[in-house]
Amino acid sequence: MSATFGRVAVLGLGLIGGSLMHAVRQSGLDVVGYDIDPATAAAASASGYPVTPTDAAAVHGADLVVLAMPLPQVPDALRSLAPHLAPGALLTDVGTLKQPVHAAVREIVPHARFVGGHPLAGTEESGWGATDPLLFRDAPWTLTIEPETDLDAWLAVADLVCDLGAKPVPATAAEQDTAVAHVIGLPHVLAEVLALTGLAGGPLGLSLAAGSYRSGSRVARTRPDLVATWCDGNAALVQALDDVIGRLSGAREQLAANGSMYELAAAGHDARVNWEHRRFAPVELRAGVEELCDHGRNGGWITAVLRDDDGVRLLGMRPPS
Amino acid sequence: MSATFGRVAVLGLGLIGGSLMHAVRQSGLDVVGYDIDPATAAAASASGYPVTPTDAAAVHGADLVVLAMPLPQVPDALRSLAPHLAPGALLTDVGTLKQPVHAAVREIVPHARFVGGHPLAGTEESGWGATDPLLFRDAPWTLTIEPETDLDAWLAVADLVCDLGAKPVPATAAEQDTAVAHVIGLPHVLAEVLALTGLAGGPLGLSLAAGSYRSGSRVARTRPDLVATWCDGNAALVQALDDVIGRLSGAREQLAANGSMYELAAAGHDARVNWEHRRFAPVELRAGVEELCDHGRNGGWITAVLRDDDGVRLLGMRPPS
Repeated sequence: MSATFGRVAVLGLGLIGGSLMHAVRQSGLDVVGYDIDPATAAAASASGYPVTPTDAAAVHGADLVVLAMPLPQVPDALRSLAPHLAPGALLTDVGTLKQPVHAAVREIVPHARFVGGHPLAGTEESGWGATDPLLFRDAPWTLTIEPETDLDAWLAVADLVCDLGAKPVPATAAEQDTAVAHVIGLPHVLAEVLALTGLAGGPLGLSLAAGSYRSGSRVARTRPDLVATWCDGNAALVQALDDVIGRLSGAREQLAANGSMYELAAAGHDARVNWEHRRFAPVELRAGVEELCDHGRNGGWITAVLRDDDGVRLLGMRPPS
Repeated sequence: MSATFGRVAVLGLGLIGGSLMHAVRQSGLDVVGYDIDPATAAAASASGYPVTPTDAAAVHGADLVVLAMPLPQVPDALRSLAPHLAPGALLTDVGTLKQPVHAAVREIVPHARFVGGHPLAGTEESGWGATDPLLFRDAPWTLTIEPETDLDAWLAVADLVCDLGAKPVPATAAEQDTAVAHVIGLPHVLAEVLALTGLAGGPLGLSLAAGSYRSGSRVARTRPDLVATWCDGNAALVQALDDVIGRLSGAREQLAANGSMYELAAAGHDARVNWEHRRFAPVELRAGVEELCDHGRNGGWITAVLRDDDGVRLLGMRPPS
């Protein structure tokens, strides 16, 4: 289906962009890459991928351009590639926060056909050396959809994401950023704080730190500049931190008054176990902005984009209502 | 070396106690078990272990008795087994907090030869079905040592712990409980809070939750009553939570003022990576309470208890000074 795209250009060849080159090629499409860092470009080239010396050359003739550089580099990248975008080419990205990218696109390339994307598929590793063609297998992948979204563009990108084995989740940029504050920003901030406060136990604590410290602080291994781009400027994260501080203050008072952590632990246990055991049922959807937004808001995703004489049908999964 | 013990009785056959039965038998010692829960006792028995119908029968003739029941059951267990302890028998335990167990032993069996123990080897699983003979391999294992500790008893238990492939860490009960507040209590409380607050992202957040939410909330899968026994009553955890709340409040203010999480992330990254990359050097120690306390306080552990004509020598590892 994603033969919709004759050529895909990936700009930025770190963990996500590089893995995307592998995955796009495996899905049978023509792919070309570019990275601002010569060492990364050389590594990708040495792995047998066509890597261009300029972003203009990569974008030239591509009908899908993927912005896969860190968020702070997106505005410059947009300015640089804008004159070279083929007419009708689609633009997407893979960044964690969607509102800042939407704002940059609106400002710099207001007429581009843009669909914001966010594959939930990172690890705490980074760089070309960590790339993995299977990174996106079964990964949720936000595709932003707004009242003004070009639905054909959205469907074409969703189709490709399905082909990569991932799960397109429709959401507005604002809704996705709020959700991301809770399930990405927050876990990272907590991991950083645990990494620091946990070690206040001194050398003895360092030696006794085991599984719970290890898993709780795992993502503190992530490159700090990436963590910052996933958190900074996301107002919903302030709210999420307020909630956490409130819960922790309650726990602290409970403990200080010789109370028990049992209730908190029972609630946390249930939340975590229920999340693991969610169930989903197949559903067929019409390709409409409202219907898709509702679908994502209710925890659903797309599994296939089907085209026949009557138009487009979408298959999806969602929690039973 | 641990032929010091002719017979080991393990009371409580959950994840830790049950794994200990496997490991003690693999080290060549005679082991017998008891569990207050008939189903657990039956499961252990069905796996080919001698399981007694009463704690008295298990303790009878054992020269090492391991209390491996949850902390709230320890006082009753001590009262029940006290009349049956063989003269000279050693008593140890495997609980997370050491001060409450010391207090119970002082009150109920004040003349027992007791060495508090805490293998840092749990997982979020529990019960006989999760037991693993290799659970303790390379695990730190606190053995409490105090001015009044019977050093021969301490060395005998340390010797056994080395034989099980684990790493005896000498510490006073108070020092170990403070360290544990930071590296066990705190990670569990944070995981519970993340499990709850993370899900405030709604069904969309549930579907976007990925690796960082998964690892950050992993230990929220632990049985809530166990989490409570690892936290409740530990004053040092109140202090650790105050530290965390302070750091999170700082992060919240930073974000709300359009600042960056970069500095926090850089500090957390360094703390976590430095922990992973700690290095250790071998050291030889005299078997003295003060020297052992210092060794543990500095992040060291014991690797072997050697006995020759000149007495006892200890080999250990510690961070380079």
